Order: sequence, then structure tokens, then C-alpha cells
Amino acid sequence: MKEFELIKHFFTKQAVKRKDVELGIGDDCAVLAPIENQNIVVTTDTLVAGVHFPHQTDAKAIGHKAVAVNLSDIAAMGAKPSWLSLAITLPEIDEAWITSFCEGVFELCDFYNVELIGGDTTQGPLSITITAQGITPQNSYLKRSGAKAGDWLYVTGELGDAALALQHITGKVDIEVQAFNFIRSKLDYPKPRVLAGQMLREYASSAIDLSDGLVADLGHICQASNVGANLVLDALPLSTIMRDNLLNEDAIKLALSGGDDYELLFTVSEDNKVGMETAMSHAGTPVTCIGQLNASHTITTTLNNKPISINTEGFEHFTD
Amino acid sequence: MKEFELIKHFFTKQAVKRKDVELGIGDDCAVLAPIENQNIVVTTDTLVAGVHFPHQTDAKAIGHKAVAVNLSDIAAMGAKPSWLSLAITLPEIDEAWITSFCEGVFELCDFYNVELIGGDTTQGPLSITITAQGITPQNSYLKRSGAKAGDWLYVTGELGDAALALQHITGKVDIEVQAFNFIRSKLDYPKPRVLAGQMLREYASSAIDLSDGLVADLGHICQASNVGANLVLDALPLSTIMRDNLLNEDAIKLALSGGDDYELLFTVSEDNKVGMETAMSHAGTPVTCIGQLNASHTITTTLNNKPISINTEGFEHFTD
Repeated sequence: MKEFELIKHFFTKQAVKRKDVELGIGDDCAVLAPIENQNIVVTTDTLVAGVHFPHQTDAKAIGHKAVAVNLSDIAAMGAKPSWLSLAITLPEIDEAWITSFCEGVFELCDFYNVELIGGDTTQGPLSITITAQGITPQNSYLKRSGAKAGDWLYVTGELGDAALALQHITGKVDIEVQAFNFIRSKLDYPKPRVLAGQMLREYASSAIDLSDGLVADLGHICQASNVGANLVLDALPLSTIMRDNLLNEDAIKLALSGGDDYELLFTVSEDNKVGMETAMSHAGTPVTCIGQLNASHTITTTLNNKPISINTEGFEHFTD
Repeated sequence: MKEFELIKHFFTKQAVKRKDVELGIGDDCAVLAPIENQNIVVTTDTLVAGVHFPHQTDAKAIGHKAVAVNLSDIAAMGAKPSWLSLAITLPEIDEAWITSFCEGVFELCDFYNVELIGGDTTQGPLSITITAQGITPQNSYLKRSGAKAGDWLYVTGELGDAALALQHITGKVDIEVQAFNFIRSKLDYPKPRVLAGQMLREYASSAIDLSDGLVADLGHICQASNVGANLVLDALPLSTIMRDNLLNEDAIKLALSGGDDYELLFTVSEDNKVGMETAMSHAGTPVTCIGQLNASHTITTTLNNKPISINTEGFEHFTD
């Protein structure tokens, strides 16, 4: 137990001290100051070694990713991340490992002014559970359920690179070293679209972050909003590395079904299209229109303006 | 993955729907309504199979305990529990197990009007991390740091029964079946002192819940409040089962160092003593005065009015 008490000291070494945290780590609970005219959003995500990241992943990347996947959920609500609770289960105490893990955690926390307000350290098989909270102006958050038939479907960034990196790691494809290092950083150090998410509050009718894969997550929007969608496969934003290493159909499949992108998928009405594109351009966030919603309650795909059926896990998921 | 999606349905089957939850389980985040003139308290605790509970523990007890240990932290702040996020890692899907686990979770949630606002289900070695939140009137919560020399030290309930049950399970002592079943319920189904905690807001100068053991947790209060304490060992509230099964010194040692009691340890000024005792009596919560704080910065113990030195892990912990 004593060694595990020591770890707590690592978690108190952070730079961020928010005004709305009256009591941080060190008591039975953290205490947050009251917030008027704001909503609080809350999300929880667990990463298990060997399931959500390969066992050989750098400790810093694990720390980064554990925070990033949670901030990505906050971003998808259009909220500003504020507080983090971190529970880590470790097989043993390795100070170098913990130091590096904390670097990954605090780099993101510092950047987004997020305070670690609580933690629990226990002994057992490696896993990390983070509960992240954020704030939005009252009644001004993005849901999955606001999309309407006719709205345009957009995605930030590029799709599939993280999944491609995982395919290389598991020996399914072989990618040249330099290119692999680039896409591995997308797998290990995903960048949550926190600022884009907040800007989208003003324009988007619905939003979700891409963790399960494009089709699966689009399915969540369609189900929650009671709409269907057509995806224009030619329009999917694929990286040069994807195009260089995979046949077009394989690249599209990976972009449709591969998880771990942590980009935002969102819908915008015709009226808000130009405003949103201008705002995103000012923010330096690349966005691509990849389809349109309709009243069909199914997800269809077209390639070269022709309907095409592509069977992915994601499609099955939606049709459950 | 699909099977793990199914589990989510279990977690949405709860009776409690709070008005301050605008959006519950099912989106990227839950959304909480703004709270004016109140503080929010937040705590996180992980239970790992084989570390925090024996592998053969009933699923319902695991669900109960995972919630109870978190509500106990909320109680120690004098707060009213309100929202829960639950992350569970399971080796496999066993519907009967999940049903029973959820029973344990929701029984406590229903009783205290706590809403499960988010969850994550992942595959891996069994462990549960809960982040619980509660509310208190603004600036009216209990900390570890408010105790003063001269304050009286109190504890709710009885001490050591959970630790004694664990000693029977691990073969260190042998207890008659009926008695064991009684104390095992204290180990498996601890009752968080939620209502007592809220009443103590008006009277106590500091509070902590007993999870690590009496001396260790008293050490936390002493460190945070910069005081010392004398514990009157004759006064420790021991159950009949403890007295029947252990020699007096062994019983005292277990009460001092055994964890998992989840009673409240708190301090009260001379002025608030009678008021607190009356309030606790009305609430039906047994409390015992077990010592007094002083300016010494150490923890001493007396038995039959004589100083006595008892070496426990807890003492070592405090002297670090």
C-alpha cells in the first residue's frame, strides 16, 4: 500500500490550478465551486492494456491517450473540458513508467487548462479509467439527436490512419518505417478536437466523436436523430499514406470501419454550412463534407455517383 | 464488442431519474443542469477482484460495495450523493452475473436517489471504477483539515468486523457460521453513513471515512489539521462477535488497523458535542467518543488510563 500511496505524489505535480476547484486531490472528495448558467458534461472511458492499446505502447502515449479519448467525448458535446478524475490499476511500481505516464496526462491537461481533481491507484492488471468533466453555456451543447433529413454530414481531419497503424503492428499490412512512425503518432497521440467542438456549438445540429468507426458512429447519430444518411465514398478524407499503402477499396473500408480516429463527425443544416466552413477555416481545422442525411433510416453509400454496397462491421452494428 | 454493447442496456434499467440530469446514458457525455449556490463533490474509487474483494464474492455484493465505498467518501464530505459514472471491465459476458451486479448497484442508487449518468464496459480482468458526485450547500462541506486541538474524536458504528470476516475467509481465525455470516455482510455490504454525514455538516470540525483503518485514517485527519490525538483504546466500539472471538488486545489491534469499516471518523468541538450527540441519536446513528485531539503531532493510545504503545501498520503510515 505504501508504494501506491507514493504514486499519489506524482498526481499532485500539475501546473493547472483552476479557480472553480475549491479542494483538489487529498481529501475524501474534490470540491468544485458552483457554476451559474452553465451545464456540466461528464464522460467516463477505460483503457485496458492489450485491448485498447498494444502492451508495448509507451507510458507517455498511454497517459496521453487515456486523457485524449475522454476529452474527445467532451469535444463532441461542444463543451470546454475542466476537471479530470483518474483511476489507474498498475501491476507494479515503476517510477520511470509513472513519470512518463504522468507526462502524457499533464501535457494535455496543461494545454486545455484541465485540473486533475482526484485519483485512485490500485494494484492489478494495467488499466486506466478517467472521468472527465466539462462545461458549456446553459442549454448550448451538441447531442447525437439533433440531426435532420437534409443536413450535411461533415468530418474533421483524415480517417483511418490509426487503424492502418494498428494493422501494421499486428502484421496485416507492411508500411515503410517513416510513414509508419507518422501514422503511429495518430494511434498513440490522438488529438481531441476540443476547440473545433466548442466552435461547432454555434453551427452543428448534432455531433459525435469517432471512436468505434465512421459507419458505427454515424449509425449512432442516425438512430438518435431518427434519420438515414448517404455517404459519398469518393469524398472520404484519406491521408497520402493511406492512398500510398492500400488499394482504394481497402482504404475506404478502413476509413469506414476502423476505430480510434477521434475526429468529430457532425451534421450542419444548409443554412449553417457556409458559416461553419468559415469558422473551421479560421480555426485551422480541416473539415470535409462526406454525405447528406435523409429520411430513409438506413445508411447507404455511393461511389462515382453510383450506389455501392460495402459490408463492414459498422453496418452490421447499425442494423442490430 | 457487440456483446459489450448489450451490457449498456442493463445500465439503463434504473428507476432514478433526477431533474438535474438533462441527458443521461446514451450520448458522448451526460449533461447535468446548473446548480446555484451549491458545491459539487467528486470522488473516484476502483475495486479490483482479488485485491479489494475475494474472487468468490457474490456479484450483487461487488455491485453494492463498488457504490458504497464511493458514497462513503461523499458522506465524509457531508454531501448528498447525486450522480454516478460506472466503468466495468469484465473477463466475459455472463448475463446472470451482470443482472446480480446491477441489483447491488441499483439498490443503493434507488435508496439514495442517485442516478447512473454514464458507463463504460470493457473486456479484461474484473475491476470496477466508479466516480460518484454529490452536492452540498455552498461552502458547507466537511474537510479533513478542520480539526483543532481540544476537539473530541468520534466514530460511528462498530469497528473491525469487516476485517475479522476477511481473517476468517483467509483462514487466520475460525468463526462459527452464524456469526461469520453476520460479519461477512459488513464486509460485503458496507452501509455508507450518508445521512449521518449530512447531519454532521452542522457539528463536526473534520471528517473522514474509515477505509484504510482507524489509525491510518486518523493520521490523515491529524496531518491535514496539523494536530495530534490520543485514542482511548477501552472506548473503541467493538461488536459482540469481535469480543467473543478475539482476545482483547487482538480485537483492539484489528479495530485500529483493519480496513473496510466505512464508518465515519469525525471531530467535534466541546461546544458542539451535545448538539451532535442529540442529532445522531435522533437519526439512530450510534456514535462513540474514542479520544481527543491535542497539539502533539503524534497519535498516542491509552488503556485503563495508562499510555500503551501498539504497533500497527497504521502508525507506521502516519509517521512517514
